[in-house]
Amino acid sequence: MAQTMIALRKTKRARGAEIQEIPIPDVKPNEVLIKVQASSLCGTDVHIYEWDSWAQSRVQNVPYTVGHETTGVVVKKGSVVSRVEEGDIVSVETHIPCMHCKQCMTGQMHICHNLKILGVDTNGAFAEYLVVPEIVVWKNDKTIPPEFLSIQEPLGNAVHATLIEPVHGKSVAILGDGPIGLFSVGVARASGATQIFLTGIEPFRLDIGKKMGADHIINVAKEDAVKFVKEQTGGLGADVVIEMSGVPSAMQDGVKMLRRGGRYCFFGIFRENLVPTPLNDIIFNGGRFYGINGRLMMDTWFTVSNLLSSKRLDVRPVVTHKMPLTNFEEAFELMIESPKKVGKIVLFPDVAFMNGRN
Amino acid sequence: MAQTMIALRKTKRARGAEIQEIPIPDVKPNEVLIKVQASSLCGTDVHIYEWDSWAQSRVQNVPYTVGHETTGVVVKKGSVVSRVEEGDIVSVETHIPCMHCKQCMTGQMHICHNLKILGVDTNGAFAEYLVVPEIVVWKNDKTIPPEFLSIQEPLGNAVHATLIEPVHGKSVAILGDGPIGLFSVGVARASGATQIFLTGIEPFRLDIGKKMGADHIINVAKEDAVKFVKEQTGGLGADVVIEMSGVPSAMQDGVKMLRRGGRYCFFGIFRENLVPTPLNDIIFNGGRFYGINGRLMMDTWFTVSNLLSSKRLDVRPVVTHKMPLTNFEEAFELMIESPKKVGKIVLFPDVAFMNGRN
Amino acid sequence: MAQTMIALRKTKRARGAEIQEIPIPDVKPNEVLIKVQASSLCGTDVHIYEWDSWAQSRVQNVPYTVGHETTGVVVKKGSVVSRVEEGDIVSVETHIPCMHCKQCMTGQMHICHNLKILGVDTNGAFAEYLVVPEIVVWKNDKTIPPEFLSIQEPLGNAVHATLIEPVHGKSVAILGDGPIGLFSVGVARASGATQIFLTGIEPFRLDIGKKMGADHIINVAKEDAVKFVKEQTGGLGADVVIEMSGVPSAMQDGVKMLRRGGRYCFFGIFRENLVPTPLNDIIFNGGRFYGINGRLMMDTWFTVSNLLSSKRLDVRPVVTHKMPLTNFEEAFELMIESPKKVGKIVLFPDVAFMNGRN
Amino acid sequence: MAQTMIALRKTKRARGAEIQEIPIPDVKPNEVLIKVQASSLCGTDVHIYEWDSWAQSRVQNVPYTVGHETTGVVVKKGSVVSRVEEGDIVSVETHIPCMHCKQCMTGQMHICHNLKILGVDTNGAFAEYLVVPEIVVWKNDKTIPPEFLSIQEPLGNAVHATLIEPVHGKSVAILGDGPIGLFSVGVARASGATQIFLTGIEPFRLDIGKKMGADHIINVAKEDAVKFVKEQTGGLGADVVIEMSGVPSAMQDGVKMLRRGGRYCFFGIFRENLVPTPLNDIIFNGGRFYGINGRLMMDTWFTVSNLLSSKRLDVRPVVTHKMPLTNFEEAFELMIESPKKVGKIVLFPDVAFMNGRN
Repeated sequence: MAQTMIALRKTKRARGAEIQEIPIPDVKPNEVLIKVQASSLCGTDVHIYEWDSWAQSRVQNVPYTVGHETTGVVVKKGSVVSRVEEGDIVSVETHIPCMHCKQCMTGQMHICHNLKILGVDTNGAFAEYLVVPEIVVWKNDKTIPPEFLSIQEPLGNAVHATLIEPVHGKSVAILGDGPIGLFSVGVARASGATQIFLTGIEPFRLDIGKKMGADHIINVAKEDAVKFVKEQTGGLGADVVIEMSGVPSAMQDGVKMLRRGGRYCFFGIFRENLVPTPLNDIIFNGGRFYGINGRLMMDTWFTVSNLLSSKRLDVRPVVTHKMPLTNFEEAFELMIESPKKVGKIVLFPDVAFMNGRN
Repeated sequence: MAQTMIALRKTKRARGAEIQEIPIPDVKPNEVLIKVQASSLCGTDVHIYEWDSWAQSRVQNVPYTVGHETTGVVVKKGSVVSRVEEGDIVSVETHIPCMHCKQCMTGQMHICHNLKILGVDTNGAFAEYLVVPEIVVWKNDKTIPPEFLSIQEPLGNAVHATLIEPVHGKSVAILGDGPIGLFSVGVARASGATQIFLTGIEPFRLDIGKKMGADHIINVAKEDAVKFVKEQTGGLGADVVIEMSGVPSAMQDGVKMLRRGGRYCFFGIFRENLVPTPLNDIIFNGGRFYGINGRLMMDTWFTVSNLLSSKRLDVRPVVTHKMPLTNFEEAFELMIESPKKVGKIVLFPDVAFMNGRN
Repeated sequence: MAQTMIALRKTKRARGAEIQEIPIPDVKPNEVLIKVQASSLCGTDVHIYEWDSWAQSRVQNVPYTVGHETTGVVVKKGSVVSRVEEGDIVSVETHIPCMHCKQCMTGQMHICHNLKILGVDTNGAFAEYLVVPEIVVWKNDKTIPPEFLSIQEPLGNAVHATLIEPVHGKSVAILGDGPIGLFSVGVARASGATQIFLTGIEPFRLDIGKKMGADHIINVAKEDAVKFVKEQTGGLGADVVIEMSGVPSAMQDGVKMLRRGGRYCFFGIFRENLVPTPLNDIIFNGGRFYGINGRLMMDTWFTVSNLLSSKRLDVRPVVTHKMPLTNFEEAFELMIESPKKVGKIVLFPDVAFMNGRN
Repeated sequence: MAQTMIALRKTKRARGAEIQEIPIPDVKPNEVLIKVQASSLCGTDVHIYEWDSWAQSRVQNVPYTVGHETTGVVVKKGSVVSRVEEGDIVSVETHIPCMHCKQCMTGQMHICHNLKILGVDTNGAFAEYLVVPEIVVWKNDKTIPPEFLSIQEPLGNAVHATLIEPVHGKSVAILGDGPIGLFSVGVARASGATQIFLTGIEPFRLDIGKKMGADHIINVAKEDAVKFVKEQTGGLGADVVIEMSGVPSAMQDGVKMLRRGGRYCFFGIFRENLVPTPLNDIIFNGGRFYGINGRLMMDTWFTVSNLLSSKRLDVRPVVTHKMPLTNFEEAFELMIESPKKVGKIVLFPDVAFMNGRN
């Protein structure tokens, strides 16, 4: 085996990133070494690339390798690893838990008290090889193509946010037409939601939402989303609202379009932590509100994998671009400049996998 | 309005039933009078028609009108009724609750301590008119054809049994190919189950199950269902088992094919109350077991109605026969003699509705 | 029976209220007439008495009778009422549901789409007689004294907020030392919470909190509640936070003292609807948040009644004052001027009940 | 450190056990070595000691060390262990999970597909030292005396069975007066159950049940438990029934005394797997039934520990005997001969701990 690999590194506390050749890391007794086949871009990667104020305050250790949505093959495992074997195709959970805090010991390891994030706090997945602890490894169904295996992590966000309570027979309003909002539409549709609303502002993305199964597309630049949802739900409001825009006015509209006693999930991060929130309306609503962070480990991964394997969920409309890892600059620029034309972008350290198992 | 109506009556404590002309009943302040448009046959009706040992011990008051799966139009309402107006198309919940026991006062009125069953304890729906208390009335979506409105009650059994916990991303084994088992297949499919098994013995009905969306059809006369389900689930067993056959050996097989920590619903009534049950296996399984009786009032009705209105669920393969109410003998004989060729049979007191809104 | 009764009436859209003699109302077929034995004061009554901006915008119809926390004896019932008999001692749920909206038909009638509030939208309980629909009537255990029967409604708020998820074995932080916060302490203690924090600013009330079973009393005028709770919970924060102060800074502190993946209930109404809320912290917390409005009908009443009947919960420390209804001005002034010396005040239209069944 | 230790070994596939001197085992990277301070006897140990038919078919590898309820101090840990440090006082979960099956990866590791039981499938705790994987280690509160730390495992059974759904405000019938039934009484009482029934046949143990907080003691040799529970619950039956006797007739009575829509937990193992069970009654009941196996890992341990630390639960009445490990024969004979005079027996390999931290 080779001794070195290429990796996309954040080398300076400034805009940009660069490909470097670095040693392939070794494993501890409870770790796994993965040869990466595909890794997809997330908004978090873009923040780090652009080095915005969030990235400046959040990223502690530079240089390091970025990227966290990924899939690859196990090439080495530590002595006490039992979950996978060499040759298994795997993906990885991005939330690296400590396994000894109260949350980790009660099935909430995705919100570990000492949580580390892959590709933010540790070396990530835009590289030829990746080392992670066994506890975050997910063994994949090999019949699923690499680009869909790679996007299971953000798809898992959508599954967690959408299905934290069942949606069968329910009306669901999804606020925000980013990739995870678009995934949520598909997840809601596959899981029996009987009336699905998607709000957004980008016609290109709203059109993908239509393909993913939304019953009603609402361009909030042109339409009053609250009025429309209320009209379509007999004046009651939607049973479920999922906030994926991170826009305060959308969040406030979400409260107005929520049925009393309904369920509201907050997923989209806001520019400022303190957001003017209609708390009295929330109290009188009498419903349930969830902060959505990550995915259940590994409950959500079973659902994600089963929805893909069974073909109940087709994510092809969202995965709009594939390119070699070395084209990373093009990929980042596309994400930054053209959200109007991009869903998900998947990068391949080895171009053999770009069409190989598709 | 007419003063009398025809009704299918149990007139003697013996096999059979007969059409009689009887007065149209009046309403109390909290009751509703419905002009029936369609009423479908249930196995319970057949038991009462055949006057088997169950019927002999269960039915208290003869003569009375049988039938309980129904839809019609409100033609009169009592002074304190607010849920519906004259002209509304409605269906009715069969479980008539007392509204003052603990269950009725805590959202479990479907298992009321003083429960009465429509068409068993009270005059039922195989008639031109029907009186029921407001609390069991469900206002229908008029775009759904009468024969589907009528079968919402048994479809509600399937929804309650299948969705008492969510099925998205799960493997579901449905034991028994009767109409409610067939409905359950469709409900599971529409609600995101990713691996659906149906067991049974009638090729005609198993074929309907295939049309309703089962991934795997298991004819237990020819195949070992436990072995097959285990093989298809990596040796673990199904996440969910739904017993709808009322056959002890099927129930026992269900325990064997259930994943540890899975969910098992008991719906099919057994010939004898005491059934040899592998309780130690159930204990070691560590899962959740439900007795399924009726439908949630009216949560289940919302799900049923929304699945039909949104066309997420298509029940046409199950509704195999439509005929005038006066053909009741043919209908009962079909149910008794030819389960191999019958799904659901819907009867119409007014033939104008047989194809009218279809 | 008498034809008229005295009642405490809001007669003008201005500060104050007055005793008037008015006709005793009659019942509809689904209503019950109650002869009042005790009625307690709520902050809502004080808002209406003081005619503050909330009251001016909320109260629609003047003149009317105020008051809603009550108990009395059934003296007449409508023809279709089955829940109670004449002579039963009852209390009443304040939330009067329409019984035909989606919430009312799915076990959420306490947050009915067309909700009316007793003593706000309808004639209330500071009177000798009261008429309510059967659906809000609760039959009491006669062994409980009238002043405790009367306060079951606000105690029900505490039960609903505290026990919307179980508290056994959990740490619970209750923010706010008003009567419902004090009740919550007792409810949490009786239900197995193993670490109970109460925050507030009134030594008189914090002392009641200690008697109700709080493990830790935090006077926020002197101590840093967030720091203290974190220290006492190993740095993790409390499993449960219940906001009962309606103070934005307390609500924000509540988010800081909540364990990741914990449960946060919002009950206290804020002066302004829009409150700066740390939504990103809530999202990263990954927990469950509830708007608490009213009580579950009638699940909460069973819990309230059983806690009192079984003497697992002793509410005597909170019920600090009893006086005749005609002393209402003294009662309102006490509430307004001396929150530092008042828990709950119970008024008696008939002084015979002031000590009679105590 | 010493190289050898004494251990109570099953040396032959026959009745009995014997103390042997064997090497102290070493740890793997993910394991912990514990110096035992106290270990308590369980019925399972007695089955293995007596070598009954269950033990003959269940125990695979002889010789080995028996015992599984325990506490001790960490004296060595593997290189990747992070949950504990040397010097920590710990207890251990008996269910040793594989950590790679579906249950282990979805928070149900206590019912792992490849479950091993400590002291049955592996060397156990009746010894001076014990090695276990980190995943089953629980760090104790050192203020709790060793004999109570040791019985946390069976107390955890009681917590899991009793609190799998909340009991606050509910009536709870516990069937069986063995130690875990007695613990359940205390757990129900501490967690807000407002009416607690205990059934049994041993006056000595029923008297302990009274001390643990039962409201009603029912000696089934003298009284009709079904009749009594129904009378005390207004004819409805108990909200919760917990079967801890393993006696078919008690289990059947439990179904009869359960309120419709109630919760029934099966914990007591039956002599035969197939038990005549009133399944139709269970179906018409419409409630929830649970197979109870082990404890939630580690949710239940938090509850157990917090109930003990906070002194909300006092288990002293149940822990009736303490003796040196070398007195094991006396202990086993007491368990076998005198269930009428024994609650829990705790054994101490080092007598210094018998009264040391009490």
